[in-house]
Amino acid sequence: MAREAFVTLATNDRYCEGALVVAQSLRRHKTRREIVVLITPQVSTICRSRLSVLFDHVIVVDVLDSNDEAHLALLHRPELGVTFTKLHCWRLVQYTKCVFLDADTLVLTNVDELFERNELSASPDAGWPDMFNSGVFVFTPSMETYNDLIKLADTDGSFDGGDQGLLNSYFSEWSTSDTSKRLPFLYNMHSTATYTYSPAFAQYGKDTKIVHFIGFVKPWNHKYDEKTGEVTQVEGPGIHEETLVKQWWKVWAEVQGLEGMRKTTTV
Amino acid sequence: MAREAFVTLATNDRYCEGALVVAQSLRRHKTRREIVVLITPQVSTICRSRLSVLFDHVIVVDVLDSNDEAHLALLHRPELGVTFTKLHCWRLVQYTKCVFLDADTLVLTNVDELFERNELSASPDAGWPDMFNSGVFVFTPSMETYNDLIKLADTDGSFDGGDQGLLNSYFSEWSTSDTSKRLPFLYNMHSTATYTYSPAFAQYGKDTKIVHFIGFVKPWNHKYDEKTGEVTQVEGPGIHEETLVKQWWKVWAEVQGLEGMRKTTTV
Ligand SMILES: O=c1ccn([C@@H]2O[C@H](COP(=O)(O)OP(=O)(O)O)[C@@H](O)[C@H]2O)c(=O)[nH]1
Ligand SMILES: O=c1ccn([C@@H]2O[C@H](COP(=O)(O)OP(=O)(O)O)[C@@H](O)[C@H]2O)c(=O)[nH]1
Ligand SMILES: [Mn+2]
Ligand SMILES: [Mn+2]
Repeated sequence: MAREAFVTLATNDRYCEGALVVAQSLRRHKTRREIVVLITPQVSTICRSRLSVLFDHVIVVDVLDSNDEAHLALLHRPELGVTFTKLHCWRLVQYTKCVFLDADTLVLTNVDELFERNELSASPDAGWPDMFNSGVFVFTPSMETYNDLIKLADTDGSFDGGDQGLLNSYFSEWSTSDTSKRLPFLYNMHSTATYTYSPAFAQYGKDTKIVHFIGFVKPWNHKYDEKTGEVTQVEGPGIHEETLVKQWWKVWAEVQGLEGMRKTTTV
Repeated sequence: MAREAFVTLATNDRYCEGALVVAQSLRRHKTRREIVVLITPQVSTICRSRLSVLFDHVIVVDVLDSNDEAHLALLHRPELGVTFTKLHCWRLVQYTKCVFLDADTLVLTNVDELFERNELSASPDAGWPDMFNSGVFVFTPSMETYNDLIKLADTDGSFDGGDQGLLNSYFSEWSTSDTSKRLPFLYNMHSTATYTYSPAFAQYGKDTKIVHFIGFVKPWNHKYDEKTGEVTQVEGPGIHEETLVKQWWKVWAEVQGLEGMRKTTTV
């Protein structure tokens, strides 16, 4: 039978917290697909053991880095060169189809219907909507695609220094291809869109399927009061809708309660 | 023969300055279509005479206002209820097809190929990319559509209090319809996108066809030094790429130099 999986990525212990929430948010909505996390060698042993509680497979890959300081400076995100590591997901050829989810996403409902779509299906990026956002996408593992992507990274690099620029150059026909490749924005609802166009969020936001906490500040950077359930957002560029950040922390609390997690310290 | 036209709108003298620049930007790129402006009674006589220099037709229409303070407050743009006046464009049944352009747009090249598209073709809105931005769209004048829109405005109103919310509710199949209805973002490049995703602007921005100066502050609100060609942007939410604002002022200078404009004072 065809094997299909959700895949995420964490190159360090902070992003592992996000990955745990991604997995738990899929499980609580009863996904029928496998769940896989790619990690790099620097992830600690304790985090690996926690990941193994929620993921079907924890797979160690090499760090891939664009080392493209010039383009990353344009993006004001020097840390994102390492997102080239995401390319390893195409090597998961034991699966016939996968859905990649950034570690800073939160699944709000069962989204297994995504596996009916084909490579490369993704939602528009709110910053430049003729590009897709690479935080959520449907893909087909293939060593040939992997090698092509690595070659393109070598020859042309990425115009934003991260995986999103590279993937948009490679799958450049996305914006003009048929609409089945265009996932609704609700599958990758940028948590900042609630401020840039709040009437649209008020109208459509209740049907959000996957939230994506884009930007430098992530939910795990905020302060959460376990007793009151209140979140205090840290200062920083881009601010997330508070109700969404609270939902992230609610799922984090569930993760903490799971058998096998208790032996570790909290965030 | 089929009559086709570009259409814009100005309900007051400030937006007339924008409309003049829209018309001149179309003329300098040698459009072969007619150019029409809808104005409301409050536009001054002097502005009307200036408009008549650049437009084939200056058509007076009634003000239509959503009077929807609650939704406009969400948008932080109390002044946009009056954009319902845009709906009058569907009454231009002397034309078989039209392209609407907001008065805060600037055409950078010949875009007559837009008339090959059908109603309703538009670019995605960067704030919520499953909606179209209503600053640039291809439409078919029709009294039936006009009446339906007025009816919808009466019964359901607009979820953002402006024309964009209403038009997206009416043409709600836009985001899932075939890709020919989806104009590339470069036909409605929001001048703020240059900041929200500057690597994409660096990569694709040079091919921009129509700039849209969205937001509360418009190019005509900035200060321009005729001698140096320098622009000083006023403070305010949302900031426009400076090179684009300068291009707007360059076309404004052309407008000022036209026969029939000199008798009026400058901005
Ligand atoms: O130091 C890093 C930065 C990023 N990532 C992974 O790469 C994805 C993309 O980065 P991020 O989500 O921070 O970018 P944004 O969505 O804010 O553009 C993350 O979700 C993680 O899966 C990671 O593992 N370590
Ligand atoms: O007081 C107003 C406000 C708007 N408009 C017209 O309605 C359009 C939409 O408004 P605006 O461009 O200010 O909205 P934005 O694009 O910033 O959302 C303008 O371009 C004008 O054509 C107008 O004539 N008078
Ligand atoms: Mn992300
Ligand atoms: Mn506008």
